[in-house]
Amino acid sequence: MKLEQCLTEKTVNQNLLSIQYAVRGPVLERAVQIEKELEKGVSKPFKRVVRANIGDAHALGQKPFTFIRQVLALVACPELMTSPSIPEDVKERVKEILEDCIKGSAGAYSPSGGLSLVRRRVAQYLHERDGVSAASEHVYLGAGASDLVKTVLSLFVHDVDGKPPSVMIPIPQYPLFSGTISELGLRQANYYLDEENSWALMIQELERCWREASVDSHVRALVVINPGNPTGQVMHEMGAPYSSMELASFSTSSKGWAAECGLRAGYVELPRLAPRVRAAFEASRALQQCPSVLGQCALDCIMRPPRAGEASFPRWSRERAAVRRALAERANAAARALGAIPGYSCNPIDGAVFAFPRVELPARAQIAAAELNVSADEFYCLRLLEETGICVVPGSGFGQLPGTFHFRTTILHQREEFEHMMESFRRFHIDFLRKYS
Amino acid sequence: MKLEQCLTEKTVNQNLLSIQYAVRGPVLERAVQIEKELEKGVSKPFKRVVRANIGDAHALGQKPFTFIRQVLALVACPELMTSPSIPEDVKERVKEILEDCIKGSAGAYSPSGGLSLVRRRVAQYLHERDGVSAASEHVYLGAGASDLVKTVLSLFVHDVDGKPPSVMIPIPQYPLFSGTISELGLRQANYYLDEENSWALMIQELERCWREASVDSHVRALVVINPGNPTGQVMHEMGAPYSSMELASFSTSSKGWAAECGLRAGYVELPRLAPRVRAAFEASRALQQCPSVLGQCALDCIMRPPRAGEASFPRWSRERAAVRRALAERANAAARALGAIPGYSCNPIDGAVFAFPRVELPARAQIAAAELNVSADEFYCLRLLEETGICVVPGSGFGQLPGTFHFRTTILHQREEFEHMMESFRRFHIDFLRKYS
Repeated sequence: MKLEQCLTEKTVNQNLLSIQYAVRGPVLERAVQIEKELEKGVSKPFKRVVRANIGDAHALGQKPFTFIRQVLALVACPELMTSPSIPEDVKERVKEILEDCIKGSAGAYSPSGGLSLVRRRVAQYLHERDGVSAASEHVYLGAGASDLVKTVLSLFVHDVDGKPPSVMIPIPQYPLFSGTISELGLRQANYYLDEENSWALMIQELERCWREASVDSHVRALVVINPGNPTGQVMHEMGAPYSSMELASFSTSSKGWAAECGLRAGYVELPRLAPRVRAAFEASRALQQCPSVLGQCALDCIMRPPRAGEASFPRWSRERAAVRRALAERANAAARALGAIPGYSCNPIDGAVFAFPRVELPARAQIAAAELNVSADEFYCLRLLEETGICVVPGSGFGQLPGTFHFRTTILHQREEFEHMMESFRRFHIDFLRKYS
Repeated sequence: MKLEQCLTEKTVNQNLLSIQYAVRGPVLERAVQIEKELEKGVSKPFKRVVRANIGDAHALGQKPFTFIRQVLALVACPELMTSPSIPEDVKERVKEILEDCIKGSAGAYSPSGGLSLVRRRVAQYLHERDGVSAASEHVYLGAGASDLVKTVLSLFVHDVDGKPPSVMIPIPQYPLFSGTISELGLRQANYYLDEENSWALMIQELERCWREASVDSHVRALVVINPGNPTGQVMHEMGAPYSSMELASFSTSSKGWAAECGLRAGYVELPRLAPRVRAAFEASRALQQCPSVLGQCALDCIMRPPRAGEASFPRWSRERAAVRRALAERANAAARALGAIPGYSCNPIDGAVFAFPRVELPARAQIAAAELNVSADEFYCLRLLEETGICVVPGSGFGQLPGTFHFRTTILHQREEFEHMMESFRRFHIDFLRKYS
């Protein structure tokens, strides 16, 4: 029998080698090193690293919603149902969920598409939100949207008319899409959002992209991100002729008001799959058994939060108002503060938890970056990190029009930290211009 | 722009069409139909369907361990830390976990490999179990073992020396492996476990399989299941020369004493990957962000359960003793009862929650099955379901030596149900022999 180390750079799945995931890329790696250096007492121009690379509201100080967490606690440990400090509507929700769990345990597998209660709740939510009825058997739950995006994109891995499959994605985009496209061996076709027009999606640009990609590939899917990540633009309707194509509509507990990233819950609605294709999708999902039942419970609470007249409503309303106020304040303040830095421009931020400012980089800085064999925006972000301790993500990780430079920063930090960041960006950039102009 | 329904049976990823997953296959589909018929009042020779197709102890009445569930409840809802009914060691565990969550929230993403606390705890557990030290940075957490098996197998998707990659798996096997191999477009190479020898793995059979598979493929991985699923044999050591190859060692919270299936937690240890291959593995994992933080907490409790002297220990010990006693009783009783049925044989069940009896099927039954275009063992299981309401999985779903027939049944049912099942198998089989001999 032939025995050797069989997984090498040459013999490993080559698609995996090409995954780029800037959100957890080289700038973050350096940030982690710097944190360790600070711990060892190495002197730096700052006291601590500020992580602004991942859109994780809880990691930046947003508190979880009490209703969601009380429901999770009682589903996990039904002994606590007798606890007098837990409101009645929480207990009712828990009973309803446990009735849908086999033998009343969150430790039993759910059906692979999810608990039927939660799938119905998602369908109801979609109906109320969009005014179009949704069938619960077309709703599938997953471990966040990432998990479901991968299964859906995997459906397209097949040549058509002798051409390899491609997927159209917006630029800038969230690198889950480019990364998953690489992982699955699909081709990526970029359509550019219009920065001058608040990152709007332009039909003629979609058509240009489709025409060019169709020369040597078969365009099989179009990704639309709404609200944009990282750009924050909100798109309202695609309209005909796109509306006749298959549709996969994703959402996740990680974003939105609840911002429950660590619980891993999301859903996809797939209303128009052919039966045999649906069976293939379901077979792939069944291999993973089911998504976390506790994650499903969190999604249930998000789909159907407390309503007026229910015991948990006043507290939930206060918590929600505080989160919305903080998000709106940060979004406005970030766009204003970033836009006021000389050489920066920043679109209004409508619906996302990120800002994606554009930064003018002097020619000498671009040359310095090229000498170090990194892109100019990565060079900028690495210098920013070394001098201010702020860890952001270079625009090239999301894609940008050639010759333009951006970075993505989260805007969810608590007020003091947020003001420190904005002031640091300003000082750093003025200093950077002085050095490289 | 060309617009049409683009996902059809012809244009969908063909690998997904070929996924077979018998555990949730046609017999279960019919069982679900029958449940609905019973609800509508359709008369059957039985009152309810007994699901014996999935190894889900909680679904069969095993109670969750209080320690695990109390920890989950307090991690989810730290307000309950003041609850006087919760033991001190639970509160200490919760503090320790929340210190490793960013800003103390299970709603923040963990690192994609998992919380460092839990990865260290797995490494410590492996060290204590195997007597060989394990590095926590080689431990990766996932949403059950299924999730991690898929990422690890995906590493091998690459032709070597002009030959397509193949994976050696035991027959019988758990269909996660055959299903994932199909999904990834790998080739499956079967090595047969020796039923006459308590499902032992025989070196000469491994070598036969490798030799035959190597004619037109490159064998890149060998799957060993220990304790066997579905066969229940326990393998102790592989020894040289296998011990020099890369190793991926999986485990899951779904099996073992805790049997927490719905929480979706598992780990893989990957001690010997080349650095560039490890980076590719980590990139693929990072696209999925992180596994459920609450699932990780459950794994933490399983890796380091309460010890003598700690407040939760007496209750935990009682609960564990009850589970072990029930499992041992069921395993012995199932092997005995199944072995006593004329035409059945059943190996001792050492370490799994399933029995996999071999059943002699008369030639006339095989002909009847062929006329219906189903395999003889599927025919048998469908008849069993129609006449007794018991839903088991045909042996062909796991693989079996050609000409032999088996089914897999869980043995975790509570005593009364269990006795009903064994008696039903006996009566049904005697009747079946009468009909088809």
